[in-house]
Amino acid sequence: MERRKLSADEVSERLEGLNGWIAESDVIMKRFEFPNFAASLDFVNKVGALAEAADHHPDIKFGWGYAEFAMTTHDRGGLTDFDFELARKIDRL
Amino acid sequence: MERRKLSADEVSERLEGLNGWIAESDVIMKRFEFPNFAASLDFVNKVGALAEAADHHPDIKFGWGYAEFAMTTHDRGGLTDFDFELARKIDRL
Repeated sequence: MERRKLSADEVSERLEGLNGWIAESDVIMKRFEFPNFAASLDFVNKVGALAEAADHHPDIKFGWGYAEFAMTTHDRGGLTDFDFELARKIDRL
Repeated sequence: MERRKLSADEVSERLEGLNGWIAESDVIMKRFEFPNFAASLDFVNKVGALAEAADHHPDIKFGWGYAEFAMTTHDRGGLTDFDFELARKIDRL
């Protein structure tokens, strides 16, 4: 996988292949909903394990009934295929 | 412990007894820093266990090297002693 900043067209194309992710200022993000806090935390831990395995880490916001994930590739100043690959893995959880 | 919305003076008084927490629009919050993602996630899980035990749940934002916690008491429309009690427990971790 190439660690290259994607163009706006490439970002749009990759977003079409995902479900429910939105792009905003060089970040892709998605919100998930859950029945309670424990379920949110459980999902966050599963994403945490994926992130550690990929050595690519989202910013995560969560609480009772929800979890939001936001990814960018800091050292490239924008989105790369590493962000989209992690998004696909999160969606497969 | 009383589930009563605290006055601005009561909030100020309780904040003085804490270390590094700030109040902003009926929420108290604090940021912690960590050496990596795994350490942030580990701390988040410890706070999650405290929150479940207290049945009082913060909003949590975290990622590589940091974790932020924000508390309010939604059903009282402001801060109560439940928020400050959880803040004290987080600081003792």
